[in-house]
Amino acid sequence: MTPVTIIIFGASGDLTQRKLIPSLFHLFIKRKTPRELFVVGFGATPYDDERFRTHLREALNQFAAYPFTEEEWALFAARLRYLQGRYTDLADFKRLGEMLRALEGEKGNRLYYLAIPPSLFSSVVDLLGLTNQLVEDGGWRRVIIEKPFGTDLQSARLLNQQLHRTLKESQIYRIDHYLGKETVQNILFLRFANTIFEPLWNRNYIASVQITVAETVGVEHRGRYYDGVGVLRDMFQNHLLQLLTLVAMEPPASFNAEALRNEKIKVLSAIPTMSEEEIVRYTVRAQYRGYRQEKDVAPDSNTPTYAALRLFVNNWRWQGVPFYLRSGKRLAQKQTRIVIRFKEPPLSMFPLPPGKRMNPNLLVLSIQPDEGIHLRFEVKAPDTLAETRSVNMEFDYARAFGPSAVPEAYERLLLDAIQGDASLFTRADESEMAWSLLEPILHTWEQKEKPALAFYEPGSEGPVEAERLLEQDGEVWL
Amino acid sequence: MTPVTIIIFGASGDLTQRKLIPSLFHLFIKRKTPRELFVVGFGATPYDDERFRTHLREALNQFAAYPFTEEEWALFAARLRYLQGRYTDLADFKRLGEMLRALEGEKGNRLYYLAIPPSLFSSVVDLLGLTNQLVEDGGWRRVIIEKPFGTDLQSARLLNQQLHRTLKESQIYRIDHYLGKETVQNILFLRFANTIFEPLWNRNYIASVQITVAETVGVEHRGRYYDGVGVLRDMFQNHLLQLLTLVAMEPPASFNAEALRNEKIKVLSAIPTMSEEEIVRYTVRAQYRGYRQEKDVAPDSNTPTYAALRLFVNNWRWQGVPFYLRSGKRLAQKQTRIVIRFKEPPLSMFPLPPGKRMNPNLLVLSIQPDEGIHLRFEVKAPDTLAETRSVNMEFDYARAFGPSAVPEAYERLLLDAIQGDASLFTRADESEMAWSLLEPILHTWEQKEKPALAFYEPGSEGPVEAERLLEQDGEVWL
Repeated sequence: MTPVTIIIFGASGDLTQRKLIPSLFHLFIKRKTPRELFVVGFGATPYDDERFRTHLREALNQFAAYPFTEEEWALFAARLRYLQGRYTDLADFKRLGEMLRALEGEKGNRLYYLAIPPSLFSSVVDLLGLTNQLVEDGGWRRVIIEKPFGTDLQSARLLNQQLHRTLKESQIYRIDHYLGKETVQNILFLRFANTIFEPLWNRNYIASVQITVAETVGVEHRGRYYDGVGVLRDMFQNHLLQLLTLVAMEPPASFNAEALRNEKIKVLSAIPTMSEEEIVRYTVRAQYRGYRQEKDVAPDSNTPTYAALRLFVNNWRWQGVPFYLRSGKRLAQKQTRIVIRFKEPPLSMFPLPPGKRMNPNLLVLSIQPDEGIHLRFEVKAPDTLAETRSVNMEFDYARAFGPSAVPEAYERLLLDAIQGDASLFTRADESEMAWSLLEPILHTWEQKEKPALAFYEPGSEGPVEAERLLEQDGEVWL
Repeated sequence: MTPVTIIIFGASGDLTQRKLIPSLFHLFIKRKTPRELFVVGFGATPYDDERFRTHLREALNQFAAYPFTEEEWALFAARLRYLQGRYTDLADFKRLGEMLRALEGEKGNRLYYLAIPPSLFSSVVDLLGLTNQLVEDGGWRRVIIEKPFGTDLQSARLLNQQLHRTLKESQIYRIDHYLGKETVQNILFLRFANTIFEPLWNRNYIASVQITVAETVGVEHRGRYYDGVGVLRDMFQNHLLQLLTLVAMEPPASFNAEALRNEKIKVLSAIPTMSEEEIVRYTVRAQYRGYRQEKDVAPDSNTPTYAALRLFVNNWRWQGVPFYLRSGKRLAQKQTRIVIRFKEPPLSMFPLPPGKRMNPNLLVLSIQPDEGIHLRFEVKAPDTLAETRSVNMEFDYARAFGPSAVPEAYERLLLDAIQGDASLFTRADESEMAWSLLEPILHTWEQKEKPALAFYEPGSEGPVEAERLLEQDGEVWL
């Protein structure tokens, strides 16, 4: 493995402590990174190398979910450097450039991690460009940026234009940590490493798809940010549409970044734009009661903390199959799951009581908190002539592989970026396509204030309007 | 429910004690039989009613797998009668007729259970006919017979002719207790009460089917009978071919006896007759070492205690899919299971190490001793980039419904016969079709002594020749 330097902008921040350093350290002790690794922190906080190490050591004590030895820490700590600087100061970026050259010698590969507010992305990338730090003459140069990738189509395009002034698209890694989760990646394995699912995976056999990302937390300390953004930008533009594309995509010819992302684009472009009438009827926007009293939230805020949508994917595979998406804060339970509901058998051979229908098969891909797969199917109820009973076949990730086998999403994504595999990162056109999909909904919600904002109790299952959304189609949330 | 009298020929025998009475009693206390039930034992042993009851009460203590109260026993015991008689004596049958008329008054439904050697079937049915006991003028008359239904095609036809002299086919219930097992019946429910299996259930997706019925016991006290019969007649003609038809049949239009049995016949008639050359190559006959020293077994016996066959079902659904059937005594473990092996995915998107292939999906229908369903499929191995791992989704009957929920097979079958549902019983043409299928194999084995008799160690997995049978096709027993 060739030497790598990882430069973290926002090195004294939350993400660095909680995720980036624990993940990098874990990769390092598992020998998945090159031994010749440097991690350079860049930030406003006045640390030196020693204080930076002490700060991170404390973070590891708190956030590392694995055991490690003092020896391992000492080895890793020796790879850590810190540079105090401002994100808009050319001189500081020159110093950074000199420091990196001194550290890595003639040739080095660099991964810049922008764990900073999006408003600073453009400045940091420009200054890296001006100081000649993004030219791939000696080794590769890659940049990871954290969402949000814009707040609407226009700002997403602007961001991409700014990045592309200095960077090739292949150097940009837009991270969505959801895609680093084993169970999210496993959607593709389930579909394409098995023979039994793909023949069923289409409009002939699937009646509907439900995707739920439910949180129990409220806006917490993110009131200021969240109130300007809302659930559609915060969750749908990235997580929910990503899950949708993984469920709906055609089999790519190979498991590489461009092939995969081309298939995702195809799914997103097959989703028809909703008319205003459809938006009124098939979207729900809602806010939990008490949201307006949260810290840093406007007392008359109409920002939705919950949304539910019905989408279609108009292609040969999915025409006519509704995809129901919902996500919200302050709900009854934390849960991310995809429920595939199959059609009923075309004929009930078995005598059913009058008015009773066969239960449909369900395939549930549970992403969190339980990572696993359940298949609900019908068996004969014992000691009856011909009654059926719904039962589950179950597979549980943690039970099968041990609870610590499932690594932190950031680990996988950092490793992929180091190895130059962009499969699990968002491409510019994908980000823009997702925004253009949400654009009419955002417009109708925010400019026309339709449909009316609904409200729901904290700790509930969400607004009654979300139930009604499905009732129109004779469906229920599963 | 209309009154029913059940007349058991062979009332002092093993089957009556172990299965028939415990099953009838259980149905009685669950109120599944009519309260106006009589059970009349007929046999050579000189019992009176009281001694018959005492004898059965002891049997219940030993064989009833459920709790019951003295009150329940007293109620049931009051329904029990006994008549000593010979199976070839017209006078005794007249006495039986008079006794039944006295017991049941003008109108009664009668189920005659022939728990006696097949050599007596014809005599008993003829005498019942002569004494006017099979005419359905007052109520229905049904006759249950126990296998073997002949020992080859000719004797099977003869038996059916003898029965049909006096009985309509609709009065005859040929019992195969395998079909009374919940998990055997569940094969049909699994296939036809679910949407997800049927689309996969054909040559496009299934690579092969394996059916195993393995026993740990030897011939025990049945040496005399078994040595004249062998494994093909004892297990294949009925159990294994029944399991095969349930796995392979087309969906019947309804869940009724004629529709179901017509579909079974269609499967059996689609199995091509094997040439002598094919029999030599694709069948295995074997005997466990020590068999010739068993009690009542000829010291130079060539009777096979183990067989393995490869069959095809030449129709649109199954053309080209091998069905591997095996059964034997004195094997390592008692196990009845059906393994459906699916084809590999048409393309491995995921980078595999050189020479490594994707594991195929397996659907395992476990019939005994564990009753359940396992689905083996591939998931992403955690903490790898793109390796897959085989895991199982599991469903266990006893865990889902409680261990005592699965009733004794005879219970279900007796209830069906009382209710006039012949779905789970073998029709005359089905029995003859199964015999005609085995006829060439029996002929080549017994007349031509080909292939050579193989031998296997008691407690082993069977003869090595059975492994070689599959090796020819690049398969292994799963």
